[in-house]
Amino acid sequence: MDIAILLFDGVTALDAVGPFEVLSRVPDARVRFVAARPGPVRVGHGTWSLPAEAALGEVPHPDILVVPGGPGQEALMTDRPVLEWVARAHETSRWTTSVCTGSLVLAGAGVLRGVRATTHWLALEALERLGAIPVRDRVVVDGKVLTAAGVSAGIDMALHLAARLCGPQQAQAIQLAIEYDPQPPFGAGSPSTAPPDVVAEARRRSRFRSP
Amino acid sequence: MDIAILLFDGVTALDAVGPFEVLSRVPDARVRFVAARPGPVRVGHGTWSLPAEAALGEVPHPDILVVPGGPGQEALMTDRPVLEWVARAHETSRWTTSVCTGSLVLAGAGVLRGVRATTHWLALEALERLGAIPVRDRVVVDGKVLTAAGVSAGIDMALHLAARLCGPQQAQAIQLAIEYDPQPPFGAGSPSTAPPDVVAEARRRSRFRSP
Repeated sequence: MDIAILLFDGVTALDAVGPFEVLSRVPDARVRFVAARPGPVRVGHGTWSLPAEAALGEVPHPDILVVPGGPGQEALMTDRPVLEWVARAHETSRWTTSVCTGSLVLAGAGVLRGVRATTHWLALEALERLGAIPVRDRVVVDGKVLTAAGVSAGIDMALHLAARLCGPQQAQAIQLAIEYDPQPPFGAGSPSTAPPDVVAEARRRSRFRSP
Repeated sequence: MDIAILLFDGVTALDAVGPFEVLSRVPDARVRFVAARPGPVRVGHGTWSLPAEAALGEVPHPDILVVPGGPGQEALMTDRPVLEWVARAHETSRWTTSVCTGSLVLAGAGVLRGVRATTHWLALEALERLGAIPVRDRVVVDGKVLTAAGVSAGIDMALHLAARLCGPQQAQAIQLAIEYDPQPPFGAGSPSTAPPDVVAEARRRSRFRSP
């Protein structure tokens, strides 16, 4: 089973590595980072690079496609070769998935027209403008498309996917292996539970601020 | 504020990248991956490498030290230069932290003698044998030492640390930015909540199996 995680300049590292850590434990899965060109790909919010192991052309038909998000998503929206690769990969994929603003890339590739999907909470309106049906859930499944909310939600999405790939027993074993028994010190992980001033400040700074 | 995340051959990627994603958002934090030698460092469970941006000798006194775990932890236990760097860095650090079996490395460096600490649930006995006081919590704070349970717990630990570094308001803003509002599809993230047969199978396969 070939799993391709798309990298691009300005990808958020955890968007890619969260699903990697889960999916690499699925029996018989071969998880690879892919990008326009193989080699180092600069992460967002950092000074280092994740390595793309293959070029997009080398992996035209992955069984599973994972599109992470990050500040670099914006530039991808006009990157024809990447969008075309996503559209073609989706035609033959078993599962097409995204994390965070990766769903905007799926939408930009035409994959989400009329499809129920989620994204980072700040980008839900942008997702709607791109023709998807926005859903404010952590993980949304519509047909073979799985989309996750912001950054850390890729872990949850990958566990949902693992259950579909190798059954709930194995998915639970993976969850136990990575000890995913979350106990964040605050309840601020969602705009509906974070303090209103924290939410307002995040909206003010967002690159998705309504015009 | 200098934050050094230790890399080593066989480090679990999420152990390092979870805290990176949180701590890189702390104002004025400079987060670097460090290793015995700068350059690519092979991750566990994968075929790719995280890049060490500096050699240990270049960062002798980080303000904050993060030691991840992973299958490569075992080899580190007899790696004198790395253990000595950890011990020296701890002497002057503001905070010394670990994720997963990284706490065994801290213990191997002599940092945890009589200190309350946690680790991956499968490694708690090994931690005790190394002189620490094992605590079955997700994040344990003892003095300036913060230790986290397995793999994904590094995200929780880093949020605890962020609150200490820049206050709860900012830590909540970071939690909201990475949308850490976990909703795993199963409750199998801890040995006390996972199905007994899943726990038993994990124990059977563990490299920490009691002799």
